[in-house]
Amino acid sequence: MGSLRSTHPTNPRFPERPPVYAVEVSDHIMVAHSFRGEVFGPAQRLHGATFAVSAAFMADTLDANGIVVDIGRAFEVLRQVLAPLNYRNLDDIPAFKSVNTTTEFLTRHVFDGLATAAKNGELGRDGHEIGAIRVTVAESPTARAWYEGALWQR
Amino acid sequence: MGSLRSTHPTNPRFPERPPVYAVEVSDHIMVAHSFRGEVFGPAQRLHGATFAVSAAFMADTLDANGIVVDIGRAFEVLRQVLAPLNYRNLDDIPAFKSVNTTTEFLTRHVFDGLATAAKNGELGRDGHEIGAIRVTVAESPTARAWYEGALWQR
Amino acid sequence: MGSLRSTHPTNPRFPERPPVYAVEVSDHIMVAHSFRGEVFGPAQRLHGATFAVSAAFMADTLDANGIVVDIGRAFEVLRQVLAPLNYRNLDDIPAFKSVNTTTEFLTRHVFDGLATAAKNGELGRDGHEIGAIRVTVAESPTARAWYEGALWQR
Amino acid sequence: MGSLRSTHPTNPRFPERPPVYAVEVSDHIMVAHSFRGEVFGPAQRLHGATFAVSAAFMADTLDANGIVVDIGRAFEVLRQVLAPLNYRNLDDIPAFKSVNTTTEFLTRHVFDGLATAAKNGELGRDGHEIGAIRVTVAESPTARAWYEGALWQR
Amino acid sequence: MGSLRSTHPTNPRFPERPPVYAVEVSDHIMVAHSFRGEVFGPAQRLHGATFAVSAAFMADTLDANGIVVDIGRAFEVLRQVLAPLNYRNLDDIPAFKSVNTTTEFLTRHVFDGLATAAKNGELGRDGHEIGAIRVTVAESPTARAWYEGALWQR
Amino acid sequence: MGSLRSTHPTNPRFPERPPVYAVEVSDHIMVAHSFRGEVFGPAQRLHGATFAVSAAFMADTLDANGIVVDIGRAFEVLRQVLAPLNYRNLDDIPAFKSVNTTTEFLTRHVFDGLATAAKNGELGRDGHEIGAIRVTVAESPTARAWYEGALWQR
Repeated sequence: MGSLRSTHPTNPRFPERPPVYAVEVSDHIMVAHSFRGEVFGPAQRLHGATFAVSAAFMADTLDANGIVVDIGRAFEVLRQVLAPLNYRNLDDIPAFKSVNTTTEFLTRHVFDGLATAAKNGELGRDGHEIGAIRVTVAESPTARAWYEGALWQR
Repeated sequence: MGSLRSTHPTNPRFPERPPVYAVEVSDHIMVAHSFRGEVFGPAQRLHGATFAVSAAFMADTLDANGIVVDIGRAFEVLRQVLAPLNYRNLDDIPAFKSVNTTTEFLTRHVFDGLATAAKNGELGRDGHEIGAIRVTVAESPTARAWYEGALWQR
Repeated sequence: MGSLRSTHPTNPRFPERPPVYAVEVSDHIMVAHSFRGEVFGPAQRLHGATFAVSAAFMADTLDANGIVVDIGRAFEVLRQVLAPLNYRNLDDIPAFKSVNTTTEFLTRHVFDGLATAAKNGELGRDGHEIGAIRVTVAESPTARAWYEGALWQR
Repeated sequence: MGSLRSTHPTNPRFPERPPVYAVEVSDHIMVAHSFRGEVFGPAQRLHGATFAVSAAFMADTLDANGIVVDIGRAFEVLRQVLAPLNYRNLDDIPAFKSVNTTTEFLTRHVFDGLATAAKNGELGRDGHEIGAIRVTVAESPTARAWYEGALWQR
Repeated sequence: MGSLRSTHPTNPRFPERPPVYAVEVSDHIMVAHSFRGEVFGPAQRLHGATFAVSAAFMADTLDANGIVVDIGRAFEVLRQVLAPLNYRNLDDIPAFKSVNTTTEFLTRHVFDGLATAAKNGELGRDGHEIGAIRVTVAESPTARAWYEGALWQR
Repeated sequence: MGSLRSTHPTNPRFPERPPVYAVEVSDHIMVAHSFRGEVFGPAQRLHGATFAVSAAFMADTLDANGIVVDIGRAFEVLRQVLAPLNYRNLDDIPAFKSVNTTTEFLTRHVFDGLATAAKNGELGRDGHEIGAIRVTVAESPTARAWYEGALWQR
């Protein structure tokens, strides 16, 4: 292929990204909450949402079983992170007192819970082999948010 | 076709249903509420939901324009019926004080609002030409409810 | 069960409907068209749509193979009915000259083509054993129409 | 309303259907199987499917809590009916030895399990108040089947 | 954590990506158009499409309200960018005379409109805090395209 | 814009990514298989899945026709890569004897087939202009995997 490449160099502007494998599992919660700030308009009132939450675990290699992580444990860990929020009024949760529990905020909250579990090996794989996590939260058929972050800094 | 039918009679058990045309439009609301009754378990707590609501209008004929109802008006009427609920805590709405605002209850509540509008001609067609309405409300990726009723009694 | 029924009579208002089996296959077409009539507002202009079309074939019994109809033939018949419309400006099709090719109209047009094929045995089953067909056409994420009719009159 | 009706009689051809409430819950199974019969083509080989299964319970009234059935029990009953099939080769299940486990067949198999549970009151409501059940099974993004039947005969 | 990392170094090939927050809103348009070039086959004829358009706005931090951008403004800006195309024959739009209005082309066209609005602060946040935009356009249930680009060059 | 940038420097932590265009097409297969390893629990038994497979082709520029690749060829190439797996028991395929044909594994298997085709120009564009491919495989409504890799190394 070398000769081809010398005459057809790849465009140097294309993003250089190592390969990534991902496995994503989904669940949902049903919560009430309200927001502070004029930007939220009617959502400043107490209202609610069904949040459909997807958690993607990323790695650059598969393990000896041919998987990114144990999908059964991924479902369990996601459920454990979501359980304290499900069927709750988020305004009543002490840890959320000083923040707006926006869809964006929740993507990060879930990410943090999953990252801790992943680092602790709760997904059935050495946490150092998991490179990143992306959490996607859909609040309605027309709006969603996500947060993607690396588990480890170099 | 008569001769065919005499030798291959159709199964008399198949439901005899006149033809039906339907047009369905969709919207959604984000509300808080709580339920009374042990059957609801954790949903007795104040929580919330994104309700994806679809309204289907049925008729046995199309009008002169080739439509069941004016789809633009159908969207408007649905929005008008949903507006008083959107971004609200349903527990605070006086008309709902003595009921559980279950997904099933809401299908009927929306039906009643749409039926009134349809009977009043607000969909751009003589209400007597609209035979039935079905309202479907999805509360999550795995659960939904619907209510279907005729507009007129014979 | 008789004794139970005499003390707990079923509600006589519940619709008495014989059992129905259905198999539904889906395809799509991409067409241009325009409408005549003020009710259509901006859709009077030449515009277009991706129509996602589902065809459901209904029967009150399965055949000896355990199917309603041959699903492979169902896909083929649906494709044949849709082919003359795909990648076309419907305004240019002579058979449609005097009508508005609304989503509702198309549900019936597709129904008629499928009904003819079903009656002719093109679905791999005696057409008299197919009781009804429902055609659903989605024009967008928020709007769709359907037409359901019996194949045979009693 | 009487005077209106005398001048605008409703079309007598529109299907007379009493109102229906429905609640539908969804789950899925992952199975292997093969079919006997030329009509199945390549599906005569051992292959598999993810079956997304929805169970709709219908009634003409809501109970005192404002629900059709206890949705939590509906999920449980559906899971119990599906569990013996999940992660199985259906060809190995004795009860299925002499049949093709088509998508249509499975809609009825699941219906029968749910109907028994509903009649036994396992959904938290007197079974006589549940009028019908519809089971929908999607085998792929483009094909699905359903079976709908009444629970009780009149 | 330092000691863990010294014995379990993270794989240096995993892509180093700073964290990203995104908010995505969706809308749709219905247009007619035709393409020039043999590669397009039957799509060289005048046809049409429903384009489901999603716009994702990305940032590496949330603002003081806990959001990426004002989601209400995001919907408005997307609608403004799409409005001149909706219910149109794209072949008649002067700015598109010399191009094929492919799904890919439209992802970039929408991106450019959104990027200008974002840079001008029309999303309710200093445009410099918005890092990138991704526009996804689905033309059918089986085909879609997207364009993702940074708002600012370093 | 220079003066703006000097006073509002963009956050240097935002990922620097050149623009990317992508076109994605979808298809599905229905297969049987089993897994080896306790981590798989009940999935160690012979079972099956409908795998919904999406293939996204990425480039940093559109070609002269305004496309990433010929979408018709993209569908064909994807079908060719999937055909040897469809309606099969993957346990019987010699090339898969020593591996677990997990969803993750299949994302890479499909990627490899598509990458070869893309490099060989089978998508109607010089393969060097295609930068990367992402293959997404959904195994159920709640779980999916993807693999994304560059076609060429620098």
